[in-house]
Amino acid sequence: MIIDKLIDRINELENPTVVGLDPRLEYVPSFITDKYYAKYGYTPKAVGKSLYKFNKYIIDEICDIVPAVKPQIAMYERYGIEGLKAYDKTCKYAAKKGLIVIGDIKRSDIASTAAAYCDGHIGKVKIGECEYSGFTHDFITLNPYLGSDSITPYLDACKNYEKGLVVLAKTSNPNSGEIQDLLVDGKTIYETVGSLIEKWGEELRGKYGYSSVGAVVGATHPEQAKKLREQMPHTFFLVPGYGAQGGKAEDLAVCFKDGIGAIVNSSRGIIAAHLKDEYRQSREEDFAKASRAAALAMKEDLRRCIER
Amino acid sequence: MIIDKLIDRINELENPTVVGLDPRLEYVPSFITDKYYAKYGYTPKAVGKSLYKFNKYIIDEICDIVPAVKPQIAMYERYGIEGLKAYDKTCKYAAKKGLIVIGDIKRSDIASTAAAYCDGHIGKVKIGECEYSGFTHDFITLNPYLGSDSITPYLDACKNYEKGLVVLAKTSNPNSGEIQDLLVDGKTIYETVGSLIEKWGEELRGKYGYSSVGAVVGATHPEQAKKLREQMPHTFFLVPGYGAQGGKAEDLAVCFKDGIGAIVNSSRGIIAAHLKDEYRQSREEDFAKASRAAALAMKEDLRRCIER
Repeated sequence: MIIDKLIDRINELENPTVVGLDPRLEYVPSFITDKYYAKYGYTPKAVGKSLYKFNKYIIDEICDIVPAVKPQIAMYERYGIEGLKAYDKTCKYAAKKGLIVIGDIKRSDIASTAAAYCDGHIGKVKIGECEYSGFTHDFITLNPYLGSDSITPYLDACKNYEKGLVVLAKTSNPNSGEIQDLLVDGKTIYETVGSLIEKWGEELRGKYGYSSVGAVVGATHPEQAKKLREQMPHTFFLVPGYGAQGGKAEDLAVCFKDGIGAIVNSSRGIIAAHLKDEYRQSREEDFAKASRAAALAMKEDLRRCIER
Repeated sequence: MIIDKLIDRINELENPTVVGLDPRLEYVPSFITDKYYAKYGYTPKAVGKSLYKFNKYIIDEICDIVPAVKPQIAMYERYGIEGLKAYDKTCKYAAKKGLIVIGDIKRSDIASTAAAYCDGHIGKVKIGECEYSGFTHDFITLNPYLGSDSITPYLDACKNYEKGLVVLAKTSNPNSGEIQDLLVDGKTIYETVGSLIEKWGEELRGKYGYSSVGAVVGATHPEQAKKLREQMPHTFFLVPGYGAQGGKAEDLAVCFKDGIGAIVNSSRGIIAAHLKDEYRQSREEDFAKASRAAALAMKEDLRRCIER
């Protein structure tokens, strides 16, 4: 069960952090970009190669201290096919280095189309007698707006290939309440989605009682997160919004119970740490050491606030 | 304004049909796949090449009788990078043949991430002094679950590059009501989303009164579509669910007003027409003529039911 692997690794490292690999061109040191611009010109290919190289440096520095990475596919789709190649290579490299890979793809579609996304992202396709995986993910994020038949097509692949899902419940952005907070008979939409997530995960519960169908619950809404933690006892939380978006360790502690139950994402705060005065390195080539230092600081910040 | 171009072309061809380019390997005639399997083995590369070639035949047969195509990106993501290359080439080829391209990507994310999707799918990225488009779309579909700040980041690109959006309101699948039909103060979630769509499109209205921010409204729910048509006078509808999913021309006529206001999607019914007895061709190489015949039959079916 992939959720057990994730929790085991969090416990082993005593670190419930996932690093968001959401690179932006402006984060990438010039010693990387210059090389590829010289070779490929100012092209998407040069950028794709640069983003992958950038990620590789960071993965090498963090793979022994954090359990998981969460590449955000939008940052790569931005550059078309060349960007997506960098995404694919990043996921593969992270997996090779022992990291659990949460593909932040937030896909959503009706059943037969969901099956195609499933095949590509966590399942397999058969071509002749050969089987292939499109992308290399342990978990993927999904959007629930279309209802159960847009989520259940993924559950068999979760069972057959030891994969997991993380479904949006309450997102971290300022306007998330516009739809998610609407009240239906005293219950918000995100709570309704929460109940569905518990149900979708019923057959995928592991040794810690949590299922391989998790929920996205933003760190920026602590009161709501607290209610969801009680309402969803078998659902592991992926918590975005820490750091740059304003979520504090004190606030998101409510997502945990007995020291487990959630993993907290930080993207910019870790992968762009080298641009901050407190983590700046003297040699450009050492930029990823800043990410390591920031990841260790985040670990301490979380450990301070989460009761075990 | 891209919505005007779309309506002009619908009027010119007297055909409010969009062909869903959602290929499955089992639709592709063996004279295409055999060639690529021989060259590349049973690999995703061979499949990607086959899907593109399949689409190309169909595009050639329909480009003078339908105004638009809607490739469903999931069918290509299924095969990873090689599949996505076929998606990209399909969009480019369709655009070259004068078709309006609606990328069915149903993306959703928070503001800064939405901006990245926007750059890649309807905007541009700047690399050095050069500008690039990631993918070739006129419209893209989006999922509204995250609220306004997940949609508004796309509006500037719509203005600057003459592009459009189609936001999910009421989808065509059986479980769509689980969230979309929930009642809040006498108003369903899909109606709330409908009001938001009207607002998002305010500054993008064209000469027919419709805006370049459209809505997905499933043909499988005629009563609800009728209400939405009244509630959303400036919103053009993309109507899935015709044919294979059970939606009938009689039922979806409510999505139109004075003969315009919607475009109806058919995927399987057109691109897999050659597998049906009524459209089967004697020469395998002529398979796409079946798609042409099915598209013309659909045109007549719609014209019969839509009052002008």
